[in-house]
Amino acid sequence: MEVLNIVKIGGNIIDDSKSLDRLLQSFSTLEGNKMLIHGGGKIATEIGFRLGIEPNYVDGRRITDQPTLELVTMVYGGLINKNVVARLQKCGCNGIGLSGADGCMIQAVKRKVKDVDFGFVGDIASDGINTVMLSGLLRMGLTPVIAPLSFSKGVLLNTNADTIANEVAKAMSSDFSVNLIYCFEQIGVLKELCNPSSLIKSLDEDGFKTLQSMNAITKGMIPKLENAFSALHFGVAKVVIGHADHLYELINGTKGTTIL
Amino acid sequence: MEVLNIVKIGGNIIDDSKSLDRLLQSFSTLEGNKMLIHGGGKIATEIGFRLGIEPNYVDGRRITDQPTLELVTMVYGGLINKNVVARLQKCGCNGIGLSGADGCMIQAVKRKVKDVDFGFVGDIASDGINTVMLSGLLRMGLTPVIAPLSFSKGVLLNTNADTIANEVAKAMSSDFSVNLIYCFEQIGVLKELCNPSSLIKSLDEDGFKTLQSMNAITKGMIPKLENAFSALHFGVAKVVIGHADHLYELINGTKGTTIL
Repeated sequence: MEVLNIVKIGGNIIDDSKSLDRLLQSFSTLEGNKMLIHGGGKIATEIGFRLGIEPNYVDGRRITDQPTLELVTMVYGGLINKNVVARLQKCGCNGIGLSGADGCMIQAVKRKVKDVDFGFVGDIASDGINTVMLSGLLRMGLTPVIAPLSFSKGVLLNTNADTIANEVAKAMSSDFSVNLIYCFEQIGVLKELCNPSSLIKSLDEDGFKTLQSMNAITKGMIPKLENAFSALHFGVAKVVIGHADHLYELINGTKGTTIL
Repeated sequence: MEVLNIVKIGGNIIDDSKSLDRLLQSFSTLEGNKMLIHGGGKIATEIGFRLGIEPNYVDGRRITDQPTLELVTMVYGGLINKNVVARLQKCGCNGIGLSGADGCMIQAVKRKVKDVDFGFVGDIASDGINTVMLSGLLRMGLTPVIAPLSFSKGVLLNTNADTIANEVAKAMSSDFSVNLIYCFEQIGVLKELCNPSSLIKSLDEDGFKTLQSMNAITKGMIPKLENAFSALHFGVAKVVIGHADHLYELINGTKGTTIL
């Protein structure tokens, strides 16, 4: 099977223009099929404040009310997505920026209200990823650049970028040998926060459980790792987590944390 | 040659949710190849005011400074474009929202500073429309939904939606029999403003010059008509101008103003 590299970049990379430019340059030189999935970054919060849209949290989780949905549609789907594409074009990479509604790419279900009403948040539907459309774009030599927005019944929905990367990787595994690369501002999964020499070079599920029982894994990392194990179970060839400056080394396995 | 219907909708349609919904529903039922090109609307100005971005005019023409470019990237490329696509998907039309940078679709040249520095405004380059990419999307059964943004050298640029519609129509005429339909809030070109019974059913260049000499044509209509004649010269099969509620009738020539 042909290889497909799916690279997810987090908000901290988006927020740092130089770091983003370095990543986009190395991403552009990757040969073959590839996709980029980006998170939101602080710019949405900053523009939200200027618009008088106050972040609304319940139990530490942000609620996507109507003004917030409009904000993330503008910032994720417009400002960030289109600028990333324009910068990729400058690097010679033929990006095409997409939200979940574009080409019916990511169909979701609006999250049911249980204890908390998360508002306009989408959980990706089973068979919700339009692999035929995405494969068609890849065959045209295009590089999909995906904003963290899904949709349902004519309405856009806010969806976590890690989850989108994970679900796209799983779905595309039926046609490609998929490498899923989570790029962020750390060199990988660390046993001790802020201690780069405690890098875990490879991690399996037993190791993950042990680390969790030692409280050695940060809150933000847990869903990322759970996503990673889920991706491997569903046929993704390789999942690596590491620093955005090490894209090539993450793909060839010489840096970062490889999930087993 | 296969037919391609290119429909341009103006800002007043974008601003009126019910009018927009009616247009999107009738557009969705058009069979065969089609594209939608949308303008900006008042919402960009309104959000700009909330963000403290004051409109900056020189000689009655708006200047696109850096904050304004970010504003239109968010609003045209994000908020409007993605919501139009989501609403089309609900109507069963497989839209894919694009800015000029996406798939290297619209390459432009940043307007040279002469008397006025228009800022980040793009004039579409000769051979600037990527017809291969657009034809590829149409063959995949996708309907391009185009925001009024072009790009050059990694930077997005603000470009008039009428001009984009015109240039896309001309470029696509090498592969398709193109109908170019300008939809707005009036029933067509009127001899007397606000008098619907003064509708001009068909207009050639001589008629246009006569009307201009009588000052019977509004300022906003002149570039639209000049665009329309230019499109016909470059092989576009049909250009019609009329009300967004009359999409089918405009295409079959029973309503609106047909440009000859």
